[in-house]
Amino acid sequence: MAVKVLTIKEDILVANDVRAKENTDLVEKKNILMINIMSSPGAGKTTLLLKTIDDMKDKTRIGVIEGDVASSVDADKINEKSIPVVQINTAGGCHLDANQVSQGLNNLPLDDIDLLLVENVGNLICTAEFNLGEQKKVMMLSLPEGHDKPYKYPLMFTEVDVVLVSKNDLAPLLDFDMEEFVSAVKGLNEKTEIYPISAKTGEGMEAWYSWLENQLKSRQGS
Amino acid sequence: MAVKVLTIKEDILVANDVRAKENTDLVEKKNILMINIMSSPGAGKTTLLLKTIDDMKDKTRIGVIEGDVASSVDADKINEKSIPVVQINTAGGCHLDANQVSQGLNNLPLDDIDLLLVENVGNLICTAEFNLGEQKKVMMLSLPEGHDKPYKYPLMFTEVDVVLVSKNDLAPLLDFDMEEFVSAVKGLNEKTEIYPISAKTGEGMEAWYSWLENQLKSRQGS
Repeated sequence: MAVKVLTIKEDILVANDVRAKENTDLVEKKNILMINIMSSPGAGKTTLLLKTIDDMKDKTRIGVIEGDVASSVDADKINEKSIPVVQINTAGGCHLDANQVSQGLNNLPLDDIDLLLVENVGNLICTAEFNLGEQKKVMMLSLPEGHDKPYKYPLMFTEVDVVLVSKNDLAPLLDFDMEEFVSAVKGLNEKTEIYPISAKTGEGMEAWYSWLENQLKSRQGS
Repeated sequence: MAVKVLTIKEDILVANDVRAKENTDLVEKKNILMINIMSSPGAGKTTLLLKTIDDMKDKTRIGVIEGDVASSVDADKINEKSIPVVQINTAGGCHLDANQVSQGLNNLPLDDIDLLLVENVGNLICTAEFNLGEQKKVMMLSLPEGHDKPYKYPLMFTEVDVVLVSKNDLAPLLDFDMEEFVSAVKGLNEKTEIYPISAKTGEGMEAWYSWLENQLKSRQGS
């Protein structure tokens, strides 16, 4: 009798991709640009979102899906900006999946959103494996985490369209080798764009906004 | 016909606990103190290990198990200290498990080790779920990650015996509210000890070494 092999992980990922495709179809139909933002805990995703909302909300209608293992502290902060936001708690899960994001989409006023920022659970591993239906993937690597992270979390760096190197204001105090970091990232993924930023000083934020605006424009042109 | 419910995660954890118990029995027999060190990526686990080895190796025989998704950059650094070290690559897995650590133990000279430091994969979620057979769990939370992390990753803070708050030399530049952090941690786990440290300036390292020495002594006395 043949041994039965359970390929549970593959099945989960296939099921996830089916639902992710439905999410993509929905946001495309609503002419929304959905971006999946990933990082380690505390790299500055929520701070990035708050600053981006402040600086872009006059010309772009923004919505947010917040993913966390527990709590709604991030969604509470976004909510103060009077932006549509949904908090998803994964109850121990180390990433958002397409099914959870589908429920998030069902609870947002999609006709009033042009740019949907999805803040994934703080994690450099599992989040990289699950497509949510987003058109673009962005990751943040905060300077204090160190320049060796591409070697240790290669899938994340292989998957993303943009790497934001956050907390760049701390550069004088840290031994972060930007040249080695860029070389390691490009070795995994030549097409990724890398922007050093500081939400605190505003450094580099214009490059991030330009990238977002170009993505929004190229969608309107399509 | 009754619906068949697959409780895969529970089964995995039960199987893990059986193997973890075997690991505990082995290290107890060898009179080794095994410590599972967890944190986000880049919080400073390897730097802590390197500094601890430098400062304690004259009186304590130290061994290391390094866990990473990929690469051996950390084990290479430990190896330069002429300390027994094994690198485990999880090939995508977001945590070490007891089975992997068992293999690590089989590849270390256990008769020559008093203190075995296990550096887990950089992750605040999955690592907290899997016992490795260690006698004590330690986590590092680096100051740049922010004081709100206990709300977002409660299981980790509930599980650990010690929280090392690392990169404390950056405190003047950050808005980390230590009082709120300590209160949040103690709310989840009253018994956890919390030590602010900086491997860079050496601040607080003595408290960490004292804790380690007390653990080693209390084992010898038992």
